[in-house]
Amino acid sequence: MRIVDTIRRKRDGARLSDGELRDFVAGVTRGDIPDYQISALLMAIFLRGLDSGELGVLTDAMLHSGRVLDFSDLSGAKVDKHSTGGVGDKISIALAPAVAACGVRVPMISGRGLGHSGGTLDKLESIPGFRTDLDAAKFRSLLGTLGLVLAGQSDDLAPADRRLYALRDVTGTIESIPLIAASIMSKKLAEGIDALVLDVKVGGGAFMKTAERARELARTLVGIGKAAGKQVTAFMTDMNQPIGHAVGNFNEVYEAVDVLRGSGPADTRELTVTLGAEMLRLGHAVDDAAAGRARMERALDSGEALECFLRLVTAQGGDESVFTREPRYAPHQQTITAPRSGHVTTIDAEAIGVAAVMAGAGRARKEDRIDPTVALFVHARIGDRVQAGSALATLHTATAEPGIAHRIAGAFAIGDAPQAAPRLVQETIS
Amino acid sequence: MRIVDTIRRKRDGARLSDGELRDFVAGVTRGDIPDYQISALLMAIFLRGLDSGELGVLTDAMLHSGRVLDFSDLSGAKVDKHSTGGVGDKISIALAPAVAACGVRVPMISGRGLGHSGGTLDKLESIPGFRTDLDAAKFRSLLGTLGLVLAGQSDDLAPADRRLYALRDVTGTIESIPLIAASIMSKKLAEGIDALVLDVKVGGGAFMKTAERARELARTLVGIGKAAGKQVTAFMTDMNQPIGHAVGNFNEVYEAVDVLRGSGPADTRELTVTLGAEMLRLGHAVDDAAAGRARMERALDSGEALECFLRLVTAQGGDESVFTREPRYAPHQQTITAPRSGHVTTIDAEAIGVAAVMAGAGRARKEDRIDPTVALFVHARIGDRVQAGSALATLHTATAEPGIAHRIAGAFAIGDAPQAAPRLVQETIS
Repeated sequence: MRIVDTIRRKRDGARLSDGELRDFVAGVTRGDIPDYQISALLMAIFLRGLDSGELGVLTDAMLHSGRVLDFSDLSGAKVDKHSTGGVGDKISIALAPAVAACGVRVPMISGRGLGHSGGTLDKLESIPGFRTDLDAAKFRSLLGTLGLVLAGQSDDLAPADRRLYALRDVTGTIESIPLIAASIMSKKLAEGIDALVLDVKVGGGAFMKTAERARELARTLVGIGKAAGKQVTAFMTDMNQPIGHAVGNFNEVYEAVDVLRGSGPADTRELTVTLGAEMLRLGHAVDDAAAGRARMERALDSGEALECFLRLVTAQGGDESVFTREPRYAPHQQTITAPRSGHVTTIDAEAIGVAAVMAGAGRARKEDRIDPTVALFVHARIGDRVQAGSALATLHTATAEPGIAHRIAGAFAIGDAPQAAPRLVQETIS
Repeated sequence: MRIVDTIRRKRDGARLSDGELRDFVAGVTRGDIPDYQISALLMAIFLRGLDSGELGVLTDAMLHSGRVLDFSDLSGAKVDKHSTGGVGDKISIALAPAVAACGVRVPMISGRGLGHSGGTLDKLESIPGFRTDLDAAKFRSLLGTLGLVLAGQSDDLAPADRRLYALRDVTGTIESIPLIAASIMSKKLAEGIDALVLDVKVGGGAFMKTAERARELARTLVGIGKAAGKQVTAFMTDMNQPIGHAVGNFNEVYEAVDVLRGSGPADTRELTVTLGAEMLRLGHAVDDAAAGRARMERALDSGEALECFLRLVTAQGGDESVFTREPRYAPHQQTITAPRSGHVTTIDAEAIGVAAVMAGAGRARKEDRIDPTVALFVHARIGDRVQAGSALATLHTATAEPGIAHRIAGAFAIGDAPQAAPRLVQETIS
């Protein structure tokens, strides 16, 4: 079958055969299908879709396009968590060590910031000396000894996804549920895990803006995982405002460490406990979610989770002493204040994320450098009652950035009527 | 506007602005939009369509992407004909000189064979010495002195179309009515013509298999032409069997010359007269179609049209003496016979075209060479009563080709019930 015939068939709404999908991924991996044919097929898939059978084969071919990790020789279950991305989402940083402290191994491979949304790798690298580019031996060794490793994707893991993703970014084919799902699951299933907990963000600061789209993505991800023989649970969680207060990099790590110290913002702790309880359950460390919650809370409150995190920081080359002193942020501090009294009705979380990127906490282009000292703190949350002139947010930047502060101010809507806070965990799909 | 935003907008079904379409064509022409973005947009256009306003702007931008010919200094109307392509379609070769002989100038730019369908350029080049790669001065000079020129597309005519077409061919985006229409009309409107007659083929041997699709293409082409201020008439004509008997190259030219001698197969002459009558009417050489038919018939029967053709052959470097002797075809002759008695119910014209290409009369790949001595003659027509063992077709090839002869045999269906011949001209749209 020539690739042009595969393109034509998908274009006309046909179901692609297993052979067509595997030939496509093999050609992408070898680099012998030209970009223009790949992008034509991606657009046809975007507009015509893939059924669950096609999607399973596509994902399987992508995950086998490179090395597939195998940790079956290490005792116990290996469980990971993946978030679809939001603003202020530092959950992995507290979650992974807490779960590891409870006896479930976490081989976590994270990504970089994308658009308005931050990335766990970028946040971890704001810890002085911390390395995320681990080789396979180091990765395995940390998972064996600490039960935890936090690394970036190596080049030989799902290489077909890397090429497809780069093309999707420039050809308007990002926002396709099957393509998103195949990209996420091909990487996660190559990690050698037994189970996966998914945090599918929904709302203004998420890539999925509506519950309907988020639910479809969650179901698609769970379906692929189950078809591959893995235990998968997806939580649909609110992304209509940043998680916690910190948006940036080192300030987000520091807030996650607050959670590891048994404190931290309520929503950040709650999401860590909820996701962790399910990871423990899927990893057979507890019998049910209630026991999982109790175990997670104990790990956070006892210091076990923090100890695991600090060991990992040291093992990955980071300077753990930064957590023993108050962090220092960029010198220019601007306070964004409420223009009137009332109730915070909405926060444009995507605008907050974009403002943080503009301030230097993320990348507008791939080659941009992140300034780890840039920090935004969002004090007000949806439903809060605020007084005119009270602080809504504080921005720390290297130079004065009145335009960015103005953008952040514009992200808050204040009204007269009381407003209920959004529910953090909206649905559970498994 | 970044091209990726244009892709996303069309992907989501939006109407593209004039600026977006012109920027796209300008970028394609300059070569600074990567192929993968062009192909993603082509696929989005394929699946989402273009409205008549978008199509007019796209065509106009494509036609102005290169040189636009201007023959307004030459007296009288300049009229061309375009066929959407079929099997055995040698009409242009008789039509153009006949119309020129009647006083309407014909600046005809033709193409090469495509898929199963032949191309006028390939056919003309089977005349020994005949050149179709004329420079602008020669093109103008022949149109001025003979009132007729038959040439290929120069590189500076609608260059955006050339790049788009090459990509469409390999990305499964050929069969899109707006993209087909923009491609045809951008080239034709760049020819400096006042009017255009379109022969939109419909049936098994055409690119448009159904009357509905052919009608939509015909209306789209006429709409673009009228919006550009040209007179345009489209005929939907039958392509459920080859036109005339000859399928190949030199044998097709020879059959067209038979028409120019006042004889030739009835359908070939009829189509020549019908299309020519309309070209004469649009070119103001006659008052109505009936007068046009009479004038065309006189030109064919009196030898005026033949004389014009032979002058053109000489002027374009060809050896006109080949038409004074019986043509000689490739040495291996196979007769395809009827396996039973009955009525010819259908002929798979596309299969006939593909068989001719396989025999060497066309190109499977761009770089293939055509053998002008390969010739297929289809004797039986739909509705004909045939006897078992009587000749359905004769194939002349360089070496024995039993497989191809077998394919040709398979293209004929013979049944018991009498079958009406298809109507040659099915609809007229203007």
